[in-house]
Amino acid sequence: MRILITGAAGMIGRKLTGRLVAAGELNGKPIAELVLHDIVAPEAPDLPGAKITTLTGDLADDGAAERLVGFKPDVVFHLAGVVSGEAEADFEKGYRVNLDGTRALFEAIRHAGIAPRVVFTSSIAVFGAPFPDVIPDEFHPIPLTSYGTQKLMSEALLTDYSRRGFFDGIGIRLPTICVRPGKPNKAASSFFSGIIREPLAGQPAILPVPRSVLHTHASPRAAVGFLVHAAGLDGESVGPRRNLTMPGVAVTVGEQIEALARIAGPDTARLIREEPDATIWAIVKNWPTRFSADRARTLGFAAEQSFDEIVRAHIEDELG
Amino acid sequence: MRILITGAAGMIGRKLTGRLVAAGELNGKPIAELVLHDIVAPEAPDLPGAKITTLTGDLADDGAAERLVGFKPDVVFHLAGVVSGEAEADFEKGYRVNLDGTRALFEAIRHAGIAPRVVFTSSIAVFGAPFPDVIPDEFHPIPLTSYGTQKLMSEALLTDYSRRGFFDGIGIRLPTICVRPGKPNKAASSFFSGIIREPLAGQPAILPVPRSVLHTHASPRAAVGFLVHAAGLDGESVGPRRNLTMPGVAVTVGEQIEALARIAGPDTARLIREEPDATIWAIVKNWPTRFSADRARTLGFAAEQSFDEIVRAHIEDELG
Repeated sequence: MRILITGAAGMIGRKLTGRLVAAGELNGKPIAELVLHDIVAPEAPDLPGAKITTLTGDLADDGAAERLVGFKPDVVFHLAGVVSGEAEADFEKGYRVNLDGTRALFEAIRHAGIAPRVVFTSSIAVFGAPFPDVIPDEFHPIPLTSYGTQKLMSEALLTDYSRRGFFDGIGIRLPTICVRPGKPNKAASSFFSGIIREPLAGQPAILPVPRSVLHTHASPRAAVGFLVHAAGLDGESVGPRRNLTMPGVAVTVGEQIEALARIAGPDTARLIREEPDATIWAIVKNWPTRFSADRARTLGFAAEQSFDEIVRAHIEDELG
Repeated sequence: MRILITGAAGMIGRKLTGRLVAAGELNGKPIAELVLHDIVAPEAPDLPGAKITTLTGDLADDGAAERLVGFKPDVVFHLAGVVSGEAEADFEKGYRVNLDGTRALFEAIRHAGIAPRVVFTSSIAVFGAPFPDVIPDEFHPIPLTSYGTQKLMSEALLTDYSRRGFFDGIGIRLPTICVRPGKPNKAASSFFSGIIREPLAGQPAILPVPRSVLHTHASPRAAVGFLVHAAGLDGESVGPRRNLTMPGVAVTVGEQIEALARIAGPDTARLIREEPDATIWAIVKNWPTRFSADRARTLGFAAEQSFDEIVRAHIEDELG
């Protein structure tokens, strides 16, 4: 089993690498070769018996994607991309990395004639408001950000390249990943993780939106699970509609805080201070709330059942 | 009023040029400059007082799109593209012309900083089977052809460039254009026009599908009307969802033939010979049938009310 991971130095990329190395196999086959690529150098893990290569660069550069697929991977995890805020702030960079980089990789695979399974991380940002209470799998995608546009265009390419037989693609639309480890950042969604992560570390956290805000979450552990599951799916059973909205836990911010209090005690939950922020609220109020994700569930994708599970996953995976 | 038309040598491009030149104005403003572009040389019409330029080349070539928008058009009609059959037969050409050409034009407009109205001809090929009986405006677009994929990706760009204020775009999804003038071609949809056009010219025509096939049509005249109407729309009233499914006449093939018999007599209709073709049927049976087109109608787009009108439009416009 030869595996390529783009965006391997990112949070999900590192966790996916860790999971694969711990298992030593994918789809029941021992890992013989693992190529890790990112714009910054990924860490090389230790996997006895396997050839590990780390590569650094920009996928959209001439010849970069061709070099990446030269070892004829059986499975490609394409996680590379700039995030929503950066794609909105830097129009050209967003299109170059998220669209041109993806297309360059898909083209390199087509020219190599290798037809691997390609697992692509898309996003619920392909959907734009107004939304129904529960967003069905067949909701029409009309993104309201450049990031969502780039993901939607990449999804369309993935569908067409799969239909043509150039590869066997699965796009997975990730919900908000929570609890993200690391430091708070400037993303409008940062508080969803911050109100859990900071109090658990004994630090205060700010809640900038009302407690009634409903949103769908999956843990980093669940996200890695989606990727590994997608790698082993039978393409025939997926059919021509190759992009799948992933399941998650739909809870209000108030319910997130109740879960924290149940698990870590009320004093921990009291470290959250409410400080309404009109700018963040203006963004968050147009975000999708709840997804049916029926197709993904039928195909065996599984997320947590409750936000308590998400908090416990964070404690186990990050805090020991 | 300065106007650019790409794909100006095509059937719709020529008719649009003729309509604009006959009116001498667009959106109530006299036409001062008209630039006609295509991969083959467009004919230069005569419009006293206006500067007419014809240009030949490939939009996706380096610098080509920049040269096109150098005269700072107020309205751009972007009709250029290769058709469905060609985009399916030649994968690279389809993406180069239909996606890269469109993106090059949009990028040239962005860099020129001119923010014109851009009217883009998309297609109902952005939708893929299975379909409900009536396809609503918010049906999720999952194309089943490379052509439809390229149109969907271009639609997504149009929405994002409009949201960013780089231009003020309207995408119009055309139904099948019927009756197409000219000769029969190899397109699977050719018979929809052929069974009307050929008998009206005293020639036999072949019907390769059952008479029960339901499909939506608009005349070339209506298509030109959509383009001119889109040029004058108030962008604010359209909102962020910039791509509109156009109205048309939904009829069965049997009803098409009845309209022909009513207008030209039963002997003319008897020139149609039924010769079932399994290959054509396999394609046509997955085509969309009927669209609500509610948004377009509300915004004032008007097609014919009956197939009789479509037949009469062909007789008036093509046969005198």
